[in-house]
Amino acid sequence: MSLSMQKARDWTGIRGFPNATQNKLHELLEKLKYDKVNTLTILVMGKGGVGKSSTVNSLLGERVTYVSAFQSEGLRPMIFPRVLAGFTLNVIDTPGLVEGGYVNEQSLDTIKRFLLDKTIDVLLYVDRFDSYRVDNLDRQIIKAITDTFGKKIWKRSVIGLTHAQLSPPDGLSYDDFLARRSETLMKVIRSGATIKNREIQDYDIPIALIENSGRCTTNDDLEKVLPNGICWIPNMMKTITEVISNGSKAIYVDQKLIDGPDPNLRGKIFIPYILAFQYFFVVKYIKGSIMGDIKKEKKPLWQLRDGF
Amino acid sequence: MSLSMQKARDWTGIRGFPNATQNKLHELLEKLKYDKVNTLTILVMGKGGVGKSSTVNSLLGERVTYVSAFQSEGLRPMIFPRVLAGFTLNVIDTPGLVEGGYVNEQSLDTIKRFLLDKTIDVLLYVDRFDSYRVDNLDRQIIKAITDTFGKKIWKRSVIGLTHAQLSPPDGLSYDDFLARRSETLMKVIRSGATIKNREIQDYDIPIALIENSGRCTTNDDLEKVLPNGICWIPNMMKTITEVISNGSKAIYVDQKLIDGPDPNLRGKIFIPYILAFQYFFVVKYIKGSIMGDIKKEKKPLWQLRDGF
Ligand SMILES: Nc1nc2c(ncn2[C@@H]2O[C@H](COP(=O)(O)OP(=O)(O)O)[C@@H](O)[C@H]2O)c(=O)[nH]1
Ligand SMILES: Nc1nc2c(ncn2[C@@H]2O[C@H](COP(=O)(O)OP(=O)(O)O)[C@@H](O)[C@H]2O)c(=O)[nH]1
Ligand SMILES: [Mg+2]
Ligand SMILES: [Mg+2]
Repeated sequence: MSLSMQKARDWTGIRGFPNATQNKLHELLEKLKYDKVNTLTILVMGKGGVGKSSTVNSLLGERVTYVSAFQSEGLRPMIFPRVLAGFTLNVIDTPGLVEGGYVNEQSLDTIKRFLLDKTIDVLLYVDRFDSYRVDNLDRQIIKAITDTFGKKIWKRSVIGLTHAQLSPPDGLSYDDFLARRSETLMKVIRSGATIKNREIQDYDIPIALIENSGRCTTNDDLEKVLPNGICWIPNMMKTITEVISNGSKAIYVDQKLIDGPDPNLRGKIFIPYILAFQYFFVVKYIKGSIMGDIKKEKKPLWQLRDGF
Repeated sequence: MSLSMQKARDWTGIRGFPNATQNKLHELLEKLKYDKVNTLTILVMGKGGVGKSSTVNSLLGERVTYVSAFQSEGLRPMIFPRVLAGFTLNVIDTPGLVEGGYVNEQSLDTIKRFLLDKTIDVLLYVDRFDSYRVDNLDRQIIKAITDTFGKKIWKRSVIGLTHAQLSPPDGLSYDDFLARRSETLMKVIRSGATIKNREIQDYDIPIALIENSGRCTTNDDLEKVLPNGICWIPNMMKTITEVISNGSKAIYVDQKLIDGPDPNLRGKIFIPYILAFQYFFVVKYIKGSIMGDIKKEKKPLWQLRDGF
């Protein structure tokens, strides 16, 4: 895997975590190294403003990427390689996939090109935990990701839900809310990725809750903790490492995958046929009827000649 | 104003408010009656899931309309008329204006028809305070509302922002966050409603903060209070009554307004012109070049004849 022009740095950010969190993270990385895994590349994708960049910062324990409430994001993906005791963690932040109610094909294209010759170990698909409704736009994003990287990317995915320090509405308990929010999201993912009912078990996409706010509650060990008692940073890393050990294959992005059929292209392929159709049916019809007109016009002329 | 098939009921919900809130609301209504205003019709619109129905419930102090985190909403608008000491308050809840990343023209159409022969005193346009980014879709919603009711509806509008019990991100103060969130929203509204720079003063759209959660903090008088110390229910009503006294006219929805040009129709009007254009330029061009071909084909025939 070439990470051209990207300099891997020591993962110093991990030292900013409380000891309990550091220990759990070290344990997870040791386990990976034991399984002969010494690189982990996480691709972070999702709509704009959902907290992708904040999550990258939280995960690395450094302010590496630009976070803003109001400004729209940068246009280019960024990779942050961090090395710790012979292990390389790459986190890739990307621009939002939606613009003005549409899937931004251009930003998806930029991401794809950026990933050339890289291996995605895990897709971290980010959305807000506290945004309740899903709609057809979400489905379209999932479909666009599926069309780009193949359906199998969903075997290598974790759904990250930000704003997880939430008081659920409608008198639901935190766990009930989590169950229902997950279920609505999963439905949309299954639909957008065309995961059939009999395939659900093969595509068991885990959820990781995230709270990037500086106001996240901490426990006695100073670890950031959610209303359900879970320390979210080590828990998310655990979820991610479980995905790479689930027997599925990482996604290697080669030129073929980049050139591969995307829904846009598939549409464009039809254009010459449409033009040909127009020529054969429309133009021929017009030509025919004009020829008819010409014949009608000519006849009297010949008759005139004949009578001359 | 006909409220056919809708029975006005006594506004009993007001008695559920703490005394301090009740007194403020009574005072506002007395002031309106003094100004010879004895009906107030509030139209609540916005995207799905932003908290429109919750706001209607909060405002009336009754659970009149269906609220849900996950289910998408009902398909029909509903009016809730409430009478108090000779004053009628009508609150109209509506379905969300967005579906799958598009403005739902059908739901806008249903709302329009529902409003026939009614007078809208104030449009309460609802969005979430804690949803940071605005995009072109928001602009399209504003544009659709403008196309439906006319630009002047924005002189009769209040922007209601739910989830107002918020801890601002990025180390901003509550007031700074409010200022920036308002400014991004206002930009999008001005753009969608084509409010020019020199018109900004005429269209000074006020903002009302809303917190529908049962967990909203209360003050010593048990009134629901926001982080900036404002009691939001009487404050929102005050903002609404100020709008109806700003010298602008209420929006009466007659058949003409319902039939009036909508952006869809305007698009369709062009279709005959496009066909005409195609005929004159494309067909004439083809005809011309075919005639050219025919001439070329004929020439040798005549030459042959001549040489015969
Ligand atoms: N309260 C809270 N705010 C968040 C969280 N994640 C992100 N934010 C805020 O949401 C806004 C957008 O975040 P950002 O990371 O730039 O989103 P991106 O566009 O997906 O990269 C910023 O104001 C962040 O501070 C979270 O988990 N909780
Ligand atoms: N925390 C909080 N939740 C809210 C607020 N307003 C609405 N909700 C929740 O948001 C979800 C959607 O609300 P609803 O009123 O049905 O939205 P509508 O689709 O616009 O009518 C529900 O779960 C509500 O409980 C608010 O001001 N604060
Ligand atoms: Mg970002
Ligand atoms: Mg509703």
